[in-house]
Amino acid sequence: MFFAAASPGGHIQILVTLFVMWLAAKLMAELFERLKQPSVVGEILAGVIIGQSVLGLVAPSEVTVTLAEVGVIFLLFTVGLETKPLDIFRVGKKAAVVAMLGVIVPFVGGYLLMQAWGATNVESLFIGTAMVATSVGITARVLGQMGLLDADTSRIILGAAIIDDILGLLILAMVSSVAEGRVDYLEIILTALIAIGFTLFVAFVGAPAVTRMAPQIENLRSDNSFFAFGMALCLGLSVAASYIGVAAIIGAFLAGMALAEATEDKPTMHKQMNGVTEFLVPFFLVGIGMQLKLDVFRDPSVLALTLLVTLVAIITKFVGGGAGVLSLGWRRAGQVGMGMVPRGEVGVVVAQIGLGLSVISDALFGVVLFMAVVTTLFAPPFLKMLFAGEEASEGSAAG
Amino acid sequence: MFFAAASPGGHIQILVTLFVMWLAAKLMAELFERLKQPSVVGEILAGVIIGQSVLGLVAPSEVTVTLAEVGVIFLLFTVGLETKPLDIFRVGKKAAVVAMLGVIVPFVGGYLLMQAWGATNVESLFIGTAMVATSVGITARVLGQMGLLDADTSRIILGAAIIDDILGLLILAMVSSVAEGRVDYLEIILTALIAIGFTLFVAFVGAPAVTRMAPQIENLRSDNSFFAFGMALCLGLSVAASYIGVAAIIGAFLAGMALAEATEDKPTMHKQMNGVTEFLVPFFLVGIGMQLKLDVFRDPSVLALTLLVTLVAIITKFVGGGAGVLSLGWRRAGQVGMGMVPRGEVGVVVAQIGLGLSVISDALFGVVLFMAVVTTLFAPPFLKMLFAGEEASEGSAAG
Repeated sequence: MFFAAASPGGHIQILVTLFVMWLAAKLMAELFERLKQPSVVGEILAGVIIGQSVLGLVAPSEVTVTLAEVGVIFLLFTVGLETKPLDIFRVGKKAAVVAMLGVIVPFVGGYLLMQAWGATNVESLFIGTAMVATSVGITARVLGQMGLLDADTSRIILGAAIIDDILGLLILAMVSSVAEGRVDYLEIILTALIAIGFTLFVAFVGAPAVTRMAPQIENLRSDNSFFAFGMALCLGLSVAASYIGVAAIIGAFLAGMALAEATEDKPTMHKQMNGVTEFLVPFFLVGIGMQLKLDVFRDPSVLALTLLVTLVAIITKFVGGGAGVLSLGWRRAGQVGMGMVPRGEVGVVVAQIGLGLSVISDALFGVVLFMAVVTTLFAPPFLKMLFAGEEASEGSAAG
Repeated sequence: MFFAAASPGGHIQILVTLFVMWLAAKLMAELFERLKQPSVVGEILAGVIIGQSVLGLVAPSEVTVTLAEVGVIFLLFTVGLETKPLDIFRVGKKAAVVAMLGVIVPFVGGYLLMQAWGATNVESLFIGTAMVATSVGITARVLGQMGLLDADTSRIILGAAIIDDILGLLILAMVSSVAEGRVDYLEIILTALIAIGFTLFVAFVGAPAVTRMAPQIENLRSDNSFFAFGMALCLGLSVAASYIGVAAIIGAFLAGMALAEATEDKPTMHKQMNGVTEFLVPFFLVGIGMQLKLDVFRDPSVLALTLLVTLVAIITKFVGGGAGVLSLGWRRAGQVGMGMVPRGEVGVVVAQIGLGLSVISDALFGVVLFMAVVTTLFAPPFLKMLFAGEEASEGSAAG
């Protein structure tokens, strides 16, 4: 006890937590790779195993939650770094259609299922909302590991997922207003306009400006000036996005996109950013798994609802997302639809807000959490299958 | 407020804190580089400016403290990665002499000064102890930026600083026992033996074992297997070191050293680790600055004592450390002595423990904090001067 306090490494408990999370994530990742399954799934399951429901080795704390949040921010930033704005605009129309259908079909499906189940109107709206947003992080991770972030289908998925997140947050704002008994259409429309304006501003004004500024950044006296600048832009736009009502991860993605052109020939900066992401992302993935409480599912009716909700979540997103690109053929439609299935942290956030507003029960919270985790676990193996034979290089970061 | 909660980026406040810390650190670093001063000093001053004493923009929280702690751990890990055990053993005898003299002279100097000032015996012991440990992090950062980590003098400094940390923690254990009214010599000797055994074990058994295991690590299925393994080893040995009563940073350093040979030809892993360190270290440096409370110095007697203690801290370490390598000439002696001057976080930890045990006052806490910060600010410019003309490449990590 004394020595723990005396150590300049300080809080020994936090170090132990980080060590256990890291080791569990990497052991499970290695196991899943050997079983030819995506390591993402292994790292999430590592969280379930060390978390409250199974071994109880690690409890979420402010530090682990922050590391997870910062992790998903940098993950989206590095995804953005690989995404030149022009490439996204090329697929923009298709992505928009995919996003629209991928929002409407699951929302309506979830709402109708809950109504048929006998839930209240507000509960139904919340479950519908939790089905809307796509967790771009998970899909980006799988596509990135396969070296496929450059493929057109990937761009459609990522573009649509980002539009989805914006739409999802708008629907959440609307549904929350309904739950609180007030509907402020002006506020909602304003937020939507600001969000769209922010995205367009960064893409059309910010990115070219950064590209023009590149030589000046290069000439700064500090070591690693691009790394320092990129990090500042990433954190800054994440904060800005949060303030204007968009998800922080969208700001991070846009920051990366703004830097994509300027840092194309900066392999050191990319590897350094990749190191930061590789360090933080396991805490994000393990953190998702740690949130799953298994014991709410002892009630058979909760279990039945959970399975139904999860099934509807998978089918509606797969069909809705895929329908938007049916013109590209069944295979592409299947890839896009499956790429949109993971709900991950965004579904979890919706559930947390519903719980906070006391409009959904602990059991419904468990249902949404389960749906978010299972859709996240479900998609990667199918994605790998659907993309089989298209892998590019062994990922940009094998090391 | 609603949108902040709704954002999957969650706690907007934490993001704002990280952004402000990062931006302040990097702006001050750039300014200091332009003034031909080491950026380390700029980043610490950034902490003073945004912290409680000046602007009050950012308060230390569990998250910032953890980032700082993890930051110094990875800093020492990357220093270890550049340090092959054989190189340290070559300078081991000199480092041991430097460490001994660099501990004894400041401890005696601090104790006698406080006795002359009229302080109690326990207070004098604590101030003496706070003067003992060298903050290897700061010096390592400066030497690393100059590309001088490979130089023999650097190895002596780093080796001596590590021995110093071990000695410092032992003295702290002893002094704390005295303060609590008990002196358990057996416990102290046992801890010393375990610490020395741990270090020798990692250096003589662990490092060759890791080097032999390298091909198997290479063959793991996971991407970035060396990065994953290195991170696990770093966190694991940090935890182990904390448990057996040595500082976590020593475990991290030893983990790096154990991997040095095996990862010599793994530039991607080095750049990824460098990215993690570059990301975390500013939080460590800004965090030191943020801890400085300026208003205790309004009392003239506190101010006078502070200046005296700081002066004695600088002189005793410079003379004690330098005396150990006088055989190498005045210039080398000056480099080593100055390299040992920064107390940084270790002095701060001693002060915090003394405050926690209620054996030192708020004012004495301020004195030690000031001494730790000023010795840290003081050394880098002189180090740069003393090493002028010896710079190797522009640092291994220019980006």
